[in-house]
Amino acid sequence: MLVELDRESDLPLYLQISNQIRERIHTGDLAVGSKLPPERRLAAMLGVNRTTIVTAYRELAADGLVEGHVGRGTVVADPDPDTGQSSNHQQIPWSQLFTSTTEVMNDPLLRDTTMISSRPDVISLATGIPSPELYPIELIRGLLDEALHTDGQALLQHCPTEGYWPLRSSLGDWMAGDGKPVDPENVLVVAGSQQGLYLLARTLLDPDDLVVIESPTYLGALQVFRAAGARLLPIPVDSNGMRVGLLEDLLARRRPKLIYTLPSFQNPSGGTMNLDRRRRLLDLAERYRIPIIEDDPYSVLRYEGPALPTLHAMDQRGIVIHLSTFSKILFPGFRIGWIAGPQPILKRLALMKQIVDLDTNPLAQWAVWALLDRGHLREHVEELQSIYPYRRDLMLEALQRHCTGLLQWNRPHGGFYIWARLTDGLRARDLLPEAARFGVSVAPGESFHVDDEGESTLRLNFTLPAAEEIDEGIRRLAGAIESLRSLRGTDDRKAREAVTPIV
Amino acid sequence: MLVELDRESDLPLYLQISNQIRERIHTGDLAVGSKLPPERRLAAMLGVNRTTIVTAYRELAADGLVEGHVGRGTVVADPDPDTGQSSNHQQIPWSQLFTSTTEVMNDPLLRDTTMISSRPDVISLATGIPSPELYPIELIRGLLDEALHTDGQALLQHCPTEGYWPLRSSLGDWMAGDGKPVDPENVLVVAGSQQGLYLLARTLLDPDDLVVIESPTYLGALQVFRAAGARLLPIPVDSNGMRVGLLEDLLARRRPKLIYTLPSFQNPSGGTMNLDRRRRLLDLAERYRIPIIEDDPYSVLRYEGPALPTLHAMDQRGIVIHLSTFSKILFPGFRIGWIAGPQPILKRLALMKQIVDLDTNPLAQWAVWALLDRGHLREHVEELQSIYPYRRDLMLEALQRHCTGLLQWNRPHGGFYIWARLTDGLRARDLLPEAARFGVSVAPGESFHVDDEGESTLRLNFTLPAAEEIDEGIRRLAGAIESLRSLRGTDDRKAREAVTPIV
Repeated sequence: MLVELDRESDLPLYLQISNQIRERIHTGDLAVGSKLPPERRLAAMLGVNRTTIVTAYRELAADGLVEGHVGRGTVVADPDPDTGQSSNHQQIPWSQLFTSTTEVMNDPLLRDTTMISSRPDVISLATGIPSPELYPIELIRGLLDEALHTDGQALLQHCPTEGYWPLRSSLGDWMAGDGKPVDPENVLVVAGSQQGLYLLARTLLDPDDLVVIESPTYLGALQVFRAAGARLLPIPVDSNGMRVGLLEDLLARRRPKLIYTLPSFQNPSGGTMNLDRRRRLLDLAERYRIPIIEDDPYSVLRYEGPALPTLHAMDQRGIVIHLSTFSKILFPGFRIGWIAGPQPILKRLALMKQIVDLDTNPLAQWAVWALLDRGHLREHVEELQSIYPYRRDLMLEALQRHCTGLLQWNRPHGGFYIWARLTDGLRARDLLPEAARFGVSVAPGESFHVDDEGESTLRLNFTLPAAEEIDEGIRRLAGAIESLRSLRGTDDRKAREAVTPIV
Repeated sequence: MLVELDRESDLPLYLQISNQIRERIHTGDLAVGSKLPPERRLAAMLGVNRTTIVTAYRELAADGLVEGHVGRGTVVADPDPDTGQSSNHQQIPWSQLFTSTTEVMNDPLLRDTTMISSRPDVISLATGIPSPELYPIELIRGLLDEALHTDGQALLQHCPTEGYWPLRSSLGDWMAGDGKPVDPENVLVVAGSQQGLYLLARTLLDPDDLVVIESPTYLGALQVFRAAGARLLPIPVDSNGMRVGLLEDLLARRRPKLIYTLPSFQNPSGGTMNLDRRRRLLDLAERYRIPIIEDDPYSVLRYEGPALPTLHAMDQRGIVIHLSTFSKILFPGFRIGWIAGPQPILKRLALMKQIVDLDTNPLAQWAVWALLDRGHLREHVEELQSIYPYRRDLMLEALQRHCTGLLQWNRPHGGFYIWARLTDGLRARDLLPEAARFGVSVAPGESFHVDDEGESTLRLNFTLPAAEEIDEGIRRLAGAIESLRSLRGTDDRKAREAVTPIV
């Protein structure tokens, strides 16, 4: 008998049939090319409905074990000729299972930059982090010890998704320094500003929604918005920040969902939006009722000139969502950032955070709260404000000394970055391997753009390299550029830029 | 002149026109009901194309400032009669801007449970956390101090998205205890297993994809899968775990994308999948090539009986993605969990994590690594294995003493939970307020279901309450149930259960 049915079993009859035939194919009992009984006959033999047999045979066909042929009936199929195995012994085809959101996130240029920057013989001017030798490690040591001693059980527990209440309160007070204190209810603690951006994108952006961005802009934001399926509308920046004069036409014609801006010491361009543009940007956002995400990791790191109010402080209508982090003014390892904004959006973000990771490490939150509450953070920022401009000036002098004629650059009034442009149309992408050979890394500007702009631009960080590395790093960079120029001189440039189809 | 154009300006002409008219409407210069010049005439006056005027008027109409009337032309509109303000002075309508993913996540029943549980006069049997008085606080204090002293700069820095390498390596060794060691490359560190679930859902689930879940199951997983837009296919569990006999028909008919299971000391039911069902589940997953997510926070917390291999350890084909956390065997505050699985899926998950939050707190990772590497975690688990079964037995005795006839319950061999059912069809939802009045909280079973099943069930945690609270908590619960029964006795039950439309 081909098949025996157990009518007491939980397993539906069609599956009992397909399983037993499958077993006999695997054992070789039914060889390739064997004919299975016609559906009607097997149904009669087993005393089941014909549909049951049709369904069983369809199961086997779906697994590639049998094939139906008009006129010949159903026959045992040839197994996969490459492996000699039937298909159900193969590995899971993972790449067929992935969602489209994960397809947009792998930038080989950035991966190369990161890899080069981590080599011990390379001076990294690429990374956007504060100087580790300035981390207040002893202070943190003392605080964590105190925290665990005085309140260990609570601080190793879960904490509210919205954040540790005293920290939310201190953050509200800290923001008073920007011109407007904030109620703790209007502050949400997040696991770094990257998570803040992610939560905002997931809460506000459906696929194909439009987002106004600056060009260039923070590449982590580009990745988040792209992963959300948003379409990006770039507005160029100059030394006074986003060119707001170009914005209104875009808002009127396209009605975007969001405006994303880094108004102060922008990453990567170093520029700062002036007061007039801030006012005009707010007016436009109000008129067109489009929320602004103000990403503001750097504004307290001002080295000269009068402070400007944040967009959030200027906002009268609750249209600005303010995002910031301790990663740039303290260190990135605690993964603590925050969002300040109107209650309706904060409540939604908290619901989203609850499914994303429940809550943020309460011990790290306590330590940041203590730094704020006891004035340590203010002192630490003052220390950075005395050291970083010195490094910026060292880098500007080194650029003057080594790179005149090779690069054009700006002079930022704060933050982490000098923005530079290669002369003669050289591309940063081509410079990277040459720079690696000379022992220096820079961030290629094109990664901060959504269009082909910025191929000649690069971002130089002056906070991470020690003072003695800055001149040497720029000297190596100059060597790499000169080497690239001599290589390029031997090429036929037009030919290189033409696109040859790969067939 | 109604409008003056600046032909040197960046601002398109149509916006100059609409802005100036808008301004005159706001100042009252153009009163409600005033007629604007016909498009053709204004175009001629200003020397612009008629389309420019059409576009400008359309802008004003979109903001509710003017209205077009056939025959009457364009007139200044009445402002919003409720506020006396024109529409662009209103608040942002946030609720109109939210994505649909955030609409599914707010469960009022759970919110009530959480609120009641946090009251100081309430004994919480609802929460699923380990006992804080058992946290190894002094050990952690010493480790963090050592970490910052020896390697502070690196441990307050960013770390690789995939996790701190020594921790990945130690986790691979730790998993050897389940029957199969794992290479560090096959381990991804995540910010708690909730983040692990979230990353898996975002990487594998498109809207309307089908996921097989156990019924009941972990509610954090339900929230994550729902937020991904997945459709959930429940398979009931019994004391031997998922009823795998019911699974094959579902796999064959619906071809789901994923199977999600908690095979050991399941949350919330406390049941454990036996070896035979584990084998059959793996066979089915292989045959239908459907990946299994094995969520396994509890398996090391076994209090009796022989250990079972994890599905991951039994898996020969790389079809199982294993997920676990330190939140149940250590404490939740560090937010450290991990995923072990095949390389292709881990690489995708890491790309996703990079946009979600970049990386996980390296100091916390170091501390967990040290606990693993120095054998502290093994000792700590042994301590829990000596204390928790005692609390479970106290709770079982208290149930016997106070709740016989009121509740039916099981006897789990490990983990955190006893699963109970109210007799006579009482609903846990109705019990909650009564229990709060008596000073006890429990987790309502319906929150762990996707259908109407489980209304009479509830989850009792025996790890959090101190030994002396357990008997008193169950005594209060019995009082609440008896009180509910007497209330229900006076109701007409059929009438209560009928649905009255609210019109």
